Amino acid sequence: MKILVLGSDGYIGYPLTQHLLKEGHQVIGLDNYSRRGRVSYLGSNSLTPIKEPDIRTKYLNTLGEYLGTIQHTLNEHSIDGLKNAIRKFSPSNNSIDAIVHLAEQPSAPWSMFNAQQAVITQRENVLGTLNLLWIMKEICPEAHLVKLGTMGEYGTPTCDIPEGVIPEDCIGNIQDEDHGSVAECPMSNLLFPRTPGSFYHLTKVHDTYNIHFACRNWGLRSTDIMQGVLFGLESGTRFDYDEYFGTAINRFCVQAIIGMPLTIYGLGQQTRGFLPLKDSIQCLIIALENPPELGEYRTLNQFENIYSINELANMVCRGAKQLGIHASISHIPNPRKEAEEHYYNPDHQKLFDLGYIPTTNIQGEINNLLETILPYKDQVIKDVIMPKTNWRLTNG
Amino acid sequence: MKILVLGSDGYIGYPLTQHLLKEGHQVIGLDNYSRRGRVSYLGSNSLTPIKEPDIRTKYLNTLGEYLGTIQHTLNEHSIDGLKNAIRKFSPSNNSIDAIVHLAEQPSAPWSMFNAQQAVITQRENVLGTLNLLWIMKEICPEAHLVKLGTMGEYGTPTCDIPEGVIPEDCIGNIQDEDHGSVAECPMSNLLFPRTPGSFYHLTKVHDTYNIHFACRNWGLRSTDIMQGVLFGLESGTRFDYDEYFGTAINRFCVQAIIGMPLTIYGLGQQTRGFLPLKDSIQCLIIALENPPELGEYRTLNQFENIYSINELANMVCRGAKQLGIHASISHIPNPRKEAEEHYYNPDHQKLFDLGYIPTTNIQGEINNLLETILPYKDQVIKDVIMPKTNWRLTNG
Repeated sequence: MKILVLGSDGYIGYPLTQHLLKEGHQVIGLDNYSRRGRVSYLGSNSLTPIKEPDIRTKYLNTLGEYLGTIQHTLNEHSIDGLKNAIRKFSPSNNSIDAIVHLAEQPSAPWSMFNAQQAVITQRENVLGTLNLLWIMKEICPEAHLVKLGTMGEYGTPTCDIPEGVIPEDCIGNIQDEDHGSVAECPMSNLLFPRTPGSFYHLTKVHDTYNIHFACRNWGLRSTDIMQGVLFGLESGTRFDYDEYFGTAINRFCVQAIIGMPLTIYGLGQQTRGFLPLKDSIQCLIIALENPPELGEYRTLNQFENIYSINELANMVCRGAKQLGIHASISHIPNPRKEAEEHYYNPDHQKLFDLGYIPTTNIQGEINNLLETILPYKDQVIKDVIMPKTNWRLTNG
Repeated sequence: MKILVLGSDGYIGYPLTQHLLKEGHQVIGLDNYSRRGRVSYLGSNSLTPIKEPDIRTKYLNTLGEYLGTIQHTLNEHSIDGLKNAIRKFSPSNNSIDAIVHLAEQPSAPWSMFNAQQAVITQRENVLGTLNLLWIMKEICPEAHLVKLGTMGEYGTPTCDIPEGVIPEDCIGNIQDEDHGSVAECPMSNLLFPRTPGSFYHLTKVHDTYNIHFACRNWGLRSTDIMQGVLFGLESGTRFDYDEYFGTAINRFCVQAIIGMPLTIYGLGQQTRGFLPLKDSIQCLIIALENPPELGEYRTLNQFENIYSINELANMVCRGAKQLGIHASISHIPNPRKEAEEHYYNPDHQKLFDLGYIPTTNIQGEINNLLETILPYKDQVIKDVIMPKTNWRLTNG
């Protein structure tokens, strides 16, 4: 397949590109390197060293048919620039088989910092994806859009979470006011209601609705990935641990190796889906190699399993102990407004049905990660770790 | 109450402002006059003459405590300009009791014209409202946001449509994959799934989710109005009949008076909620005078009743006949992709419970409208009426 990877310089994009090339696919990359810029703006860095873009490109060329990197921003501006850039690498219409879209601002706290960052996040993510849909309509309406969403779209409702749409065995009975009778009203196949928890998470919901419409209205096809929280290191990708771009387990591991208490936001009973980065790569490739029909909008809930934050922090402490490090845990007031004790039962069967073989040894993965980052402990910038963004009405 | 009306120069905003002043409320208006500009850009006009903004302001001053008009755009740019403009009229925090938000790009075909117009529509509507939420958080977190959405958010699902959220008597049973048991999973109070039909309608869905979050996260309060299709004339407001800004009945009435066949898109069995403009004003005032609790997100489905397009076209023909005009009907290929035969049973009880007294004589309203616009028939610009935007994948 000829695959365009948007966000090919990112945490997922760079290892994904390598794996796709090794699988024999042709790949075109696209990135604007905004992640490098933003992390550096925060005064942070990737803990493990990463290569400059041109060195990465040279390396990718050794792995397979890497067609080149488009340096371009996917944003709200005119679609012509991006369209022409894509056409340079793939001149004829319908010659791109799939587009993996990982090119969004991925930080929830960043989107909650102030009005300006909230607007920038919604503008980049929602309008960028909206323009991409129009480009696909014009130059590759049969291509398969694999789009990164988040399990955070669903929030933590008091019912089971299906994969994207309300399942067929869920019957809604709604009183008919006029006639006093009770009608059986199947809501099946309507989009399952979302209850996201930040303006970033909302962008993924907005994307979901825009993509769903493009599939219904224009007959595009898409796999919308509701991904859990990632962790781990893979294939020379970046490793962020700051408040904004560091995910929970990655942050805990960094805290452990520098002897800082693992900071849990609130009670730590928040439960989420998690997965190692290598499982994310595996799942994305499975999605690409099993495209939906034309016109189909498909959702995959993508995570290895669900864990509470406390469980994961304890695993990090156990892993640290094996390296001779005594790690402790500290509960701090939750800067986010989220249910800390809640029901959580999301479905994730579809990827298993397509052949996903999960990493079941999460403790082992955490141990490996700790070992990998330990040599870099002197490079950790401590003051980017603790949360400074308050999501609530009043600061203080 | 001190009420800020965003879009105070618009089709609804201008008559609403007059009625609020007559009810004894203090009103601040805000508009950027983009509707005047856009209709003129299309080569169209308001069929009935409208006064210049400064004449309108002078008139509003005679009706009650009109505090002034802010000429400002609600968009994605810095919130400081807008915040300062509002503060000029209402300096102290929490001194605004309610904000009626009618300041969005309201045309579905406009949003489907090309990528650029789709992006402009989503940028203006979604990011404008997002900035408004941050402004409210800062200067009036207790104010009541009355926001204009659309019944089009829901689309035409095969089940009854509740008011905003999944009702309590709708029980969802979702199979628990791991244990083989069937759990009872109430989805009640989750947002009812939306299936909108254009990038414009999608902006209203995105707004819904952003506002819902602001209520949950910051404790703002809002009434989100899912309004049906408006028609009619009231209090010297504008009257558009072009493809983009003219609603169905208004367009039919104009076609009738100029002897052009009423153009029905497709079969005409599409059924929607409709209401006269004067009912919209009545309902908005009811919503304002019955605010929800702090932190509450409330949806009102706002329409008089549901009608098929064929029924309404026939009413327009009957009304025309009384004026001695023989009007005919012509079915043209539907430029929109929508179900033409479908189930439709939306709830709209809440406004009735709050005291809404609907105009039940829709035929009479249509007759009045025809009589009112008949003197302007020579001013009709014919070539703006027929649809030129194709919503489908391929043009042609």
